Amino acid sequence: MNSSPTVIDLLIEARWVVPVEPHAVVLDDHAVAIDGGEIKAILPIADARATYAPRERVELSEHALIPGLINAHTHNPMTLMRGLADDLPLMTWLTKHIWPAEGRVMGPDFIRDGVELAVAEMIRGGTTCANENYFFPDVIAATYRRMGFRAVVGLPVIEFPSPWAKTRDEYFARAEQVHDDLIGEALLTTSFVPHAPYTVADESFERIRMLSDQLDIPVHLHTHETAQEVEESIRDHGIRPFQRLQQLGIVNERLIAVHMTQLTDGEIAACAAAGVSVVHCPESNLKLASGFCPAEKLRVAGVNVAIGTDGCASNNDLDMFGEMRTAALLAKAVAGDAAAFDAAYALRAATLNGAKAMGLGDRVGSIEVGKRADLAAIRLDDLETQPLYHVASQLVYAAGRHQVSDVWIDGTRKLADRKLVGIDTDAIRAKARGWREIIAAGDVA
Amino acid sequence: MNSSPTVIDLLIEARWVVPVEPHAVVLDDHAVAIDGGEIKAILPIADARATYAPRERVELSEHALIPGLINAHTHNPMTLMRGLADDLPLMTWLTKHIWPAEGRVMGPDFIRDGVELAVAEMIRGGTTCANENYFFPDVIAATYRRMGFRAVVGLPVIEFPSPWAKTRDEYFARAEQVHDDLIGEALLTTSFVPHAPYTVADESFERIRMLSDQLDIPVHLHTHETAQEVEESIRDHGIRPFQRLQQLGIVNERLIAVHMTQLTDGEIAACAAAGVSVVHCPESNLKLASGFCPAEKLRVAGVNVAIGTDGCASNNDLDMFGEMRTAALLAKAVAGDAAAFDAAYALRAATLNGAKAMGLGDRVGSIEVGKRADLAAIRLDDLETQPLYHVASQLVYAAGRHQVSDVWIDGTRKLADRKLVGIDTDAIRAKARGWREIIAAGDVA
Repeated sequence: MNSSPTVIDLLIEARWVVPVEPHAVVLDDHAVAIDGGEIKAILPIADARATYAPRERVELSEHALIPGLINAHTHNPMTLMRGLADDLPLMTWLTKHIWPAEGRVMGPDFIRDGVELAVAEMIRGGTTCANENYFFPDVIAATYRRMGFRAVVGLPVIEFPSPWAKTRDEYFARAEQVHDDLIGEALLTTSFVPHAPYTVADESFERIRMLSDQLDIPVHLHTHETAQEVEESIRDHGIRPFQRLQQLGIVNERLIAVHMTQLTDGEIAACAAAGVSVVHCPESNLKLASGFCPAEKLRVAGVNVAIGTDGCASNNDLDMFGEMRTAALLAKAVAGDAAAFDAAYALRAATLNGAKAMGLGDRVGSIEVGKRADLAAIRLDDLETQPLYHVASQLVYAAGRHQVSDVWIDGTRKLADRKLVGIDTDAIRAKARGWREIIAAGDVA
Repeated sequence: MNSSPTVIDLLIEARWVVPVEPHAVVLDDHAVAIDGGEIKAILPIADARATYAPRERVELSEHALIPGLINAHTHNPMTLMRGLADDLPLMTWLTKHIWPAEGRVMGPDFIRDGVELAVAEMIRGGTTCANENYFFPDVIAATYRRMGFRAVVGLPVIEFPSPWAKTRDEYFARAEQVHDDLIGEALLTTSFVPHAPYTVADESFERIRMLSDQLDIPVHLHTHETAQEVEESIRDHGIRPFQRLQQLGIVNERLIAVHMTQLTDGEIAACAAAGVSVVHCPESNLKLASGFCPAEKLRVAGVNVAIGTDGCASNNDLDMFGEMRTAALLAKAVAGDAAAFDAAYALRAATLNGAKAMGLGDRVGSIEVGKRADLAAIRLDDLETQPLYHVASQLVYAAGRHQVSDVWIDGTRKLADRKLVGIDTDAIRAKARGWREIIAAGDVA
């Protein structure tokens, strides 16, 4: 009883702790004890004070502490193209604006500066982990490493030459090299990111399946994004993309299927049976008029549904609070059921389900003993979140990302009372403005 | 040439002025000259400095100045029920939570405190005018007047007794009294707010039509909110609600039809021909799984489409930036066209179209000479709105309401660099917490 308190690195005391696992639980006046970047205990504040002698103590008397949000589908270098071309038909947007701009600027400097801006925005919005999908994964990885941000770095495969690689063999060679270079990284892992079924050939998918088995890494893929994609697959291959992926052996527990707005009930059941994760990007699907993902049907079927913002060229933000809200609202209307996809599930989709999809379910995504301390605190005493009846509802339906006060990744403070730690905001803004001049000057469509 | 500068009250110098009228125009480095609460000129900053000697000058070097946002459908006293009961089927929500809570608390104190909280939230979010729809319009009006907020105060009519009135005759008598009491008010006008076709009898609609003609005030009405409403009207009246309203003479240029998720092409054409305004409440429609308003079809048909948040019990905020974004995103998916309901139109719907719907089109809703100075400034140098290619896109698709820095209503500063002027935030928060205890204690469902 009188044992001396245990020395730990950090004790965070919060008005509410929302651990996500167990599901739909809110702990009042609880503390999270952290040492060596790992969560050691979750217990009432009074007990924590008696038990621990923390080197640092943070009091969050008006805040909810949640697992850091996990953005399960991003193209973060494209943050520099935020709002470049909106309100346009998909092919005009792509062929007249996005691809020409990428052609002019894509390279290591653009990638690095885009990811820096994205990391700053994500941390300010309570996001602590991203599922990245873009060219130059080596530069992407180096930028995340330097900034101390957790990510799954995608290894791109596409049947077109790009500044990253010219041939199929070169894409695979560079992918394996980046994967090998990242072995042992604390915050970084990899996935394969074949662009989409319509831009990747069967031979490449076969190599990806073999390598993803061998390396035990996810396959992160846009698919069933639009009705047109499905129709063209039937025209070109005689089958729907999902069926083709099944035949290629890609439909398994390592598949992260992004968008999925066009699904039969049979495909939903097949996703559940195979352990596929679906990443729902509601705002991108709306903005590009892609269609409606049956998020509630997927949830009910037992599919692991995660949430992603997609890139800033089609969203136009990396706001996981906004995305979580849109997912919860839209799912109800699509299901015709106001009780669908409730706040607790939306929060789970935006945290633990993302972690599971990305192969990080044992490390992050919930506030549990033994997990790494990726955490976000949200002030709830703003007038916009008063009065407060239910914490999860308030987080999903009323709170804004600007109410995120503090963020930790792997136990390291990244945001302290709204101030980014170790990130030069002015320099990032200046670089964004520099890229704006270059990109806008060339945008002549 | 050497005439001495004209003395005026206020000169606001902004990096960008978005006047809304003319449509889709952004003025770089312009100033707005204001005197006696009226907009006197919009001109380049350099010219403004040569022309005017302002008593107060405000420099907004990183900001867009827009017309204050107009929330065209609200139940602001219900802000005190924000998040009381979410993720429930409509009838469970209403009968087990909202109506019992209203039964316990509805009265002048609740109304006043709810509107105070709402006004603070609206101003902080760049909203300067609300189309109000709730009981006790006398208390509502007194609260708006005291806080200097522009509103159209709804005069409720419903075939059920309430703490406001017991009988049809009493509803009408009290409505006419409140209308008369508000004649000559600078910031307040009135409308009739019959609740909905299914809760208001033909006899009441006939009186409302006569009185709205006589008093020249709008009729602000929930209708075609759900498929069930339409089906029940066919069952009970043999016709759809819209057809019944047509027969009752309610479908005219004074009608503000809210929700309208169930519309035939013929009804859309009839709305356009009659000059009806439609208020689109996308987040409420999604959250209650009511259906999808064909906002783009209405726009194309020439209908005046405005935007409202609905009440905080079903949204759960008064965030017109969020609502504008959801409206623009959802309209594209519903129309199957990524070019639908573009950013410039979304901004117009959230400002000038609201003013027109509410009979205030000659006073507010755009930055034009001769209009009253209801204005909002949004800082766009946050990382979340960098880089910046197109101002209207950034406002609609990327900016958050917390980036609103300054607000004026009728030329009076209401928000100064994020601080509310003349509003005691702590007192409002304390009252919200007091109501929370009363309401939560009784919420036993």
